[in-house]
Amino acid sequence: MLTTNPFDDDKLREECGIFGIWGAETASAVVALGLHALQHRGQEAAGITSWDGHQFHTHRAMGHVAGNFDRDDVIRSLPGKVACGHVRYSTTGETALRNVQPLFAELSSGGFSIAHNGNISNAMKLRRDLVRRGSIFQSTSDTETIIHLVATSAYRSLLDKFIDALKQVEGAYSLICMTPEGMIVCRDPLGIRPLVMGRVGDAYIFASETVALDVVGATFIRQVEPGELIIVSDKGLRSIRPFANVRPRPCVFEHVYFSRPDSIVDGSSVYSVRKAIGAQLAIESPADADLVIPVPDSGVPAAIGYAQQSGIPFELGIIRSHYVGRTFIQPGDQVRHLGVKLKHNANKALIDGRRIILIDDSIVRGTTSLKIVQMMRDAGAREVHMRIASPPTRHSCFYGVDTPERAKLLAAQMTIGQMSDYINADSLAFVSVDGMYKALGEDFRDEANPQYCDACFTGDYPTHLTDQEEVAPADQLSLLGERERASL
Amino acid sequence: MLTTNPFDDDKLREECGIFGIWGAETASAVVALGLHALQHRGQEAAGITSWDGHQFHTHRAMGHVAGNFDRDDVIRSLPGKVACGHVRYSTTGETALRNVQPLFAELSSGGFSIAHNGNISNAMKLRRDLVRRGSIFQSTSDTETIIHLVATSAYRSLLDKFIDALKQVEGAYSLICMTPEGMIVCRDPLGIRPLVMGRVGDAYIFASETVALDVVGATFIRQVEPGELIIVSDKGLRSIRPFANVRPRPCVFEHVYFSRPDSIVDGSSVYSVRKAIGAQLAIESPADADLVIPVPDSGVPAAIGYAQQSGIPFELGIIRSHYVGRTFIQPGDQVRHLGVKLKHNANKALIDGRRIILIDDSIVRGTTSLKIVQMMRDAGAREVHMRIASPPTRHSCFYGVDTPERAKLLAAQMTIGQMSDYINADSLAFVSVDGMYKALGEDFRDEANPQYCDACFTGDYPTHLTDQEEVAPADQLSLLGERERASL
Amino acid sequence: MLTTNPFDDDKLREECGIFGIWGAETASAVVALGLHALQHRGQEAAGITSWDGHQFHTHRAMGHVAGNFDRDDVIRSLPGKVACGHVRYSTTGETALRNVQPLFAELSSGGFSIAHNGNISNAMKLRRDLVRRGSIFQSTSDTETIIHLVATSAYRSLLDKFIDALKQVEGAYSLICMTPEGMIVCRDPLGIRPLVMGRVGDAYIFASETVALDVVGATFIRQVEPGELIIVSDKGLRSIRPFANVRPRPCVFEHVYFSRPDSIVDGSSVYSVRKAIGAQLAIESPADADLVIPVPDSGVPAAIGYAQQSGIPFELGIIRSHYVGRTFIQPGDQVRHLGVKLKHNANKALIDGRRIILIDDSIVRGTTSLKIVQMMRDAGAREVHMRIASPPTRHSCFYGVDTPERAKLLAAQMTIGQMSDYINADSLAFVSVDGMYKALGEDFRDEANPQYCDACFTGDYPTHLTDQEEVAPADQLSLLGERERASL
Amino acid sequence: MLTTNPFDDDKLREECGIFGIWGAETASAVVALGLHALQHRGQEAAGITSWDGHQFHTHRAMGHVAGNFDRDDVIRSLPGKVACGHVRYSTTGETALRNVQPLFAELSSGGFSIAHNGNISNAMKLRRDLVRRGSIFQSTSDTETIIHLVATSAYRSLLDKFIDALKQVEGAYSLICMTPEGMIVCRDPLGIRPLVMGRVGDAYIFASETVALDVVGATFIRQVEPGELIIVSDKGLRSIRPFANVRPRPCVFEHVYFSRPDSIVDGSSVYSVRKAIGAQLAIESPADADLVIPVPDSGVPAAIGYAQQSGIPFELGIIRSHYVGRTFIQPGDQVRHLGVKLKHNANKALIDGRRIILIDDSIVRGTTSLKIVQMMRDAGAREVHMRIASPPTRHSCFYGVDTPERAKLLAAQMTIGQMSDYINADSLAFVSVDGMYKALGEDFRDEANPQYCDACFTGDYPTHLTDQEEVAPADQLSLLGERERASL
Repeated sequence: MLTTNPFDDDKLREECGIFGIWGAETASAVVALGLHALQHRGQEAAGITSWDGHQFHTHRAMGHVAGNFDRDDVIRSLPGKVACGHVRYSTTGETALRNVQPLFAELSSGGFSIAHNGNISNAMKLRRDLVRRGSIFQSTSDTETIIHLVATSAYRSLLDKFIDALKQVEGAYSLICMTPEGMIVCRDPLGIRPLVMGRVGDAYIFASETVALDVVGATFIRQVEPGELIIVSDKGLRSIRPFANVRPRPCVFEHVYFSRPDSIVDGSSVYSVRKAIGAQLAIESPADADLVIPVPDSGVPAAIGYAQQSGIPFELGIIRSHYVGRTFIQPGDQVRHLGVKLKHNANKALIDGRRIILIDDSIVRGTTSLKIVQMMRDAGAREVHMRIASPPTRHSCFYGVDTPERAKLLAAQMTIGQMSDYINADSLAFVSVDGMYKALGEDFRDEANPQYCDACFTGDYPTHLTDQEEVAPADQLSLLGERERASL
Repeated sequence: MLTTNPFDDDKLREECGIFGIWGAETASAVVALGLHALQHRGQEAAGITSWDGHQFHTHRAMGHVAGNFDRDDVIRSLPGKVACGHVRYSTTGETALRNVQPLFAELSSGGFSIAHNGNISNAMKLRRDLVRRGSIFQSTSDTETIIHLVATSAYRSLLDKFIDALKQVEGAYSLICMTPEGMIVCRDPLGIRPLVMGRVGDAYIFASETVALDVVGATFIRQVEPGELIIVSDKGLRSIRPFANVRPRPCVFEHVYFSRPDSIVDGSSVYSVRKAIGAQLAIESPADADLVIPVPDSGVPAAIGYAQQSGIPFELGIIRSHYVGRTFIQPGDQVRHLGVKLKHNANKALIDGRRIILIDDSIVRGTTSLKIVQMMRDAGAREVHMRIASPPTRHSCFYGVDTPERAKLLAAQMTIGQMSDYINADSLAFVSVDGMYKALGEDFRDEANPQYCDACFTGDYPTHLTDQEEVAPADQLSLLGERERASL
Repeated sequence: MLTTNPFDDDKLREECGIFGIWGAETASAVVALGLHALQHRGQEAAGITSWDGHQFHTHRAMGHVAGNFDRDDVIRSLPGKVACGHVRYSTTGETALRNVQPLFAELSSGGFSIAHNGNISNAMKLRRDLVRRGSIFQSTSDTETIIHLVATSAYRSLLDKFIDALKQVEGAYSLICMTPEGMIVCRDPLGIRPLVMGRVGDAYIFASETVALDVVGATFIRQVEPGELIIVSDKGLRSIRPFANVRPRPCVFEHVYFSRPDSIVDGSSVYSVRKAIGAQLAIESPADADLVIPVPDSGVPAAIGYAQQSGIPFELGIIRSHYVGRTFIQPGDQVRHLGVKLKHNANKALIDGRRIILIDDSIVRGTTSLKIVQMMRDAGAREVHMRIASPPTRHSCFYGVDTPERAKLLAAQMTIGQMSDYINADSLAFVSVDGMYKALGEDFRDEANPQYCDACFTGDYPTHLTDQEEVAPADQLSLLGERERASL
Repeated sequence: MLTTNPFDDDKLREECGIFGIWGAETASAVVALGLHALQHRGQEAAGITSWDGHQFHTHRAMGHVAGNFDRDDVIRSLPGKVACGHVRYSTTGETALRNVQPLFAELSSGGFSIAHNGNISNAMKLRRDLVRRGSIFQSTSDTETIIHLVATSAYRSLLDKFIDALKQVEGAYSLICMTPEGMIVCRDPLGIRPLVMGRVGDAYIFASETVALDVVGATFIRQVEPGELIIVSDKGLRSIRPFANVRPRPCVFEHVYFSRPDSIVDGSSVYSVRKAIGAQLAIESPADADLVIPVPDSGVPAAIGYAQQSGIPFELGIIRSHYVGRTFIQPGDQVRHLGVKLKHNANKALIDGRRIILIDDSIVRGTTSLKIVQMMRDAGAREVHMRIASPPTRHSCFYGVDTPERAKLLAAQMTIGQMSDYINADSLAFVSVDGMYKALGEDFRDEANPQYCDACFTGDYPTHLTDQEEVAPADQLSLLGERERASL
């Protein structure tokens, strides 16, 4: 697999990004650009479905958007003025094409295409019931559950069937659906995963992040509100709110790591929030040192904030090989002993003899932190003080983020002091939960009614976790008893 | 597309071949060999599904068996002692991977894999009803109808559900299904498409033709009887007959053209039957000529029969380029004017100045016959007498054979005299229907109760043709409103 | 590698075919067609070079002509009205692209392209001298020697340099060269390898066999005479004879096996010669049997001749899987024990209980004959009489034909009786050398001055074999100390 | 083509990087890693040649090192303890594989492999003479000239031949050659292109930059001195100085842009020099502004220097999409009107309403600067002050750097004031030539005897430019009259 972040084998991973457009010439080319800008949200596979007024057209591909969806023949095979797309990082081992979204079904009302960011936390229970009644699933994706609920709903109109289906699911979902009658866009009542709305010319755009609007020159209108369902058709835009009102809890990790720094999430600049967390960290956990060194690239904004707050100079002490387009896969075990530094290298002339503060955005398993501290010491650093621009990650996510099981989360197993020893730092500190909320413009975390979903830090999950509680682990794995491959 | 017969753009085409094995090490490697031997029955795509006792594994590929299923990595990805496969030539434009069999579904009873040779003549009507009740189809294949009928059947056991499903379908089907409980093999009550049973070591094999048994060194046991359903499991073989008794009507065209000459079909050697048709033709329609020339390769056995009966020498007057592995696709229109002879060439030194009898197996559109007669005249033939080793093809097939619409069948539009003029022959004759039955060992065609399905010659269809009669042509085309592509 | 003859792993192999055209629009498309018709002469690699009046353009490819040179983009990349091409089967292990012809060099006189059928028997000695003087070879091909001899010749004009070069080489060569001034075509003084001339419209064509003229609708003019050099340019055709006169000795094996049956070689129809050899064989070595069975496909003409002469019926007792486009590569050793019959199958219904005469064109190692006799016995043959339509192959060829070392030639190791026992036949006979000459229209072999090169049967070589006699075997292998690969 | 720098379509491009190792197990795997670290020096093609004691092995590939040379099969095909490799960016249109280095020739002394960084400025004149004497060139590369000079040298020993050849060439060359007797490494008398020596275990390494030593865990020993020739063999290391002594003039642009910031070039840290240039620029050309914004990524070190010197905060105002592995090729012209920002995006929330100082490393054509200034203005910047961390680029390079013709160099056509207007900046300033020398640790540029080759800034070329002065432009293009393609 291509990976594009030097240390991302030890990061939480967003599982999906979605992008839809209604009413533009070469809609699919616009979607391709939008997905490219959302590539950081899912690098394993991508798909685009277009609707030409008569027929749906879908292209799915393993790998990046670039190289697959920047080919003229592919774009030409996706005609029409309406299109939506999806980038994906999967949590399960199954990376078959059949799981690549948008998913499509031919319902009695006609074609139905769906792209989903999030995760349904009772998908397995619903699936078991549907199969018992004769439904046949094509994928192992939780998203397909929604389609079968729509197909078998007793309601008459497609919109009623769709709302009926959503009322049965729990969890996180930002959805872009296409039907012959119009595009249906929806965000779950808690608004866990983001979804924004923009405009370019006469066309409406929906996307996971504003950066995807920027890339196609679109204007940001507003976010799709938690619990809102929007129908776009030839008759224009229509917004309805089919769910009971609850206080929204958008995912805080979008600010901390997932979203691109040039995106606006929940009304805040991601870059500014990250700088503010860095400054907060400098206030909460100062260190006597010569240089502030970011772990590239995601640690840079917090490091700038830390440096500005502390007055200690910001320097590039780790050089990332981002001149290099593709990841080098180390051949065999033949050169492993050389201590190869493929993706990054210490700026030795700078580090040697200095006391440094290393700024990173999070610690998951700790494997990378261990290596980076060692790399700094090998380069001659006298002291290494590690500062993390998020609270300790102690719990798994069930809303569309790839987290290792708890037993592998370093902060779930150790105290901060133990962690510091483990990674061999001179000191280690995380920003506090309230400090993070402060950087987000809140006074503090509202314990009774938290403003964000911060379950990965606090364990406070905003929904039931039916599949976790009721479904046996074995069932969770055996969704589809076929492994499939193909050669074209 | 690869084509491997020099004149096969003007032939009827078999749509499928199937092959299954129960109880052999490296079952999938055996299936690959069997499918290779059945390649002439479908050259567009192929698939193999294996069952390893826990999981099903499927590989699907566009193109030939060789080049796809002779790769070690593919065979290794198909483990288990049970496997079945399918080669396919599709009639519709849709050649997407999702139509490539075996099809698979996860039913409430577990996995279910199906490979089908034949065609369901009421598939569209059944599909419309199933979609209305909430079933979601993955393919445009008529075979998937059977799966949804099984999934939604009200019966309890899988076998009862399966029989319930088959009782609702009409048309031609030879089926090999795999389930965790065993392999289920079945042939429709009329036995329209062939299916034979063999044995190698302790393993049972089922295949469309005996030649697929030969290739793997298996022994031919018997054919699966029309209307018979066989279950193979760890408990052994069990045969049941769930359908009402009717007189079988196997497809006569298997003898005339589809099956390989070294196969045994319905108890007769295909090579011998074809020779006998040639001899019959020499009796019915003699010609005063110097040489008997087969149109290669399918005309060869009949030509040998004609030559032996008539005493006129058999000679290779048309040389086929079968030294050449792959079909040459003429680049552009650039050299069309040259009168290119890519696949065959007249043996001019032999033909020049002679009166020849050309033997071919059938005439469909007549385009090829026209060219071949002209090629013979260009090579200096003094007279060209065309003799066809089957009756005139006047009707479409709805049981799994690709036929052009009637308006394009030359024999449906013209008298034999007109046809002779059209192809510019000095004379033209077809074997009579009764002559064909004689070569098959019958005294004559039993008009009340024909021994074979010969609908393509006689228009006498052995089943209802529900979709033809009740479903609008538009509906027949718009099965799935999505066109799908992929890049791996 | 693709192979297209069912038993060709035990045949001698022609190493090359060449085709050139001067003065046609889309010359390279015509060359592609011509090479396709010559594919049986070399199936490992192919190349085409065109000349557009300003620049040469070359495309080289591993594999067949079809699939490589029938692509529009390839033909478009080869513009111009002059082009020539080459198909190749190599004797050495080195199958790198750099050896694929036409070879090209930029000489002081301008570009020079060369395509060669044959083999230079003093190439290694010449090469050693050239390298010592500073020449740098790009390939391991003997053909490149000619180019360096031209480049370093002391003569002034290119034509004089070229003749100077040819006078230094010994062996077999039919050559098509392109230069900015014209196409130069040449056949060695003995005319060992064939070369014919044809015309289509205003264009001249040169090709290894007439069948390549047929495929493009060209008219056969005459063969290029042994020792003749033809220059084609805007000024027309010019023929010169730069070599001393000797009696020609064209390769007899072209008639026996290499050339296509529909070609005219040295003025005789290949098909007729093969039939005549078969008839001669029936006279020389009759057998009391029920059926005459050809080993397909090359044994068919001789079998027809044998059958007509003997009155014993000709029948297809071995069915070749030529319905199948690509060769199936048996996966792993997994199914080897099954006795797989991938490329051919006995027509058991026909063979069972009969006494048969098997007709093949040659025996090289004997491995195939052994298997085929056994296949016939397994199918129930009561007696198997093997008849071979060429004399015993006892010597290696050094003129462009791939022969195993003598130790592996069955006829070099055993008497005919021993061979018969070895292949387990009831009897075995070869046509006599004089019988073969008779079939070719001669009264007998002229021992003093043989009419053909028949060294593979007689050991009577028509040229010196300098490299065999003077160059150490080690030097013969280490031509270029680099193994090269590429990825595009 | 893959490009990996967001604005690199308007940068000068290094043409090559080289890496060689003597005496390590899996030498070719080490070379692959080293080339990967040098990828920024040439992204069009790569090659590795190994020597196993008996034979040379070469693999060449179009595209990046990763994806080609990180495959096990490729590394396994390159056995031996000695290997060298090359990455390439070509200046001419010809990107055929035959130009991809290392080049190889079989000389009378045995195999000879050569990898070259630099450019021979009298290559065409030498080539013309060599062809006249009968040499045949395989490539259009200037490097091949050296090989033919070696092959045809009248000296006896290979080393003498090699020195004889180098004495005839003028220009820039860092070379790594392999012969059966040893590795020969050499740097031209002026030392224009860099070359360093390192050690890992018992093995010697030679590479264009120290960063390639870091990646394989090797220790930096020293640079190869200008005019030095080193022979590494089983007998150890031997250094000779075959050329007359001249004052070295290494390329100054290696510091300004080419080399990676973590490399040590000519004894200085590239990162520190760039920061020092930034600081120097802040002293020479201050501006009253709110933010210092680097043009990523190459402008970052100078921007940090400028910010630290000026006290104006350093901020990320332009976000690069380096999360994205592969370059997106905009499909068709379909979305061009959208003003797509594929590779970078303004951090609008930060820029809006601010006065900014933009720091870039150089201006070539000016096309990118124009776009970036506009992007900043679109994001709301009140003032945009452009500062360039190199002097104006006014002259072409003939020593191995890809420069546009002078007419396209903005600074060759306009005054700085005109350039400022052209790119629509509020002000524009370049560092002075002396300022650049100061940052490099010199007091000023020694006009009589400059310490560096700075011809691109000053027009002061350190060698003759024979081909520029004596060879007609037409001849410069028509080196090889053949265009070549291949399919594998």
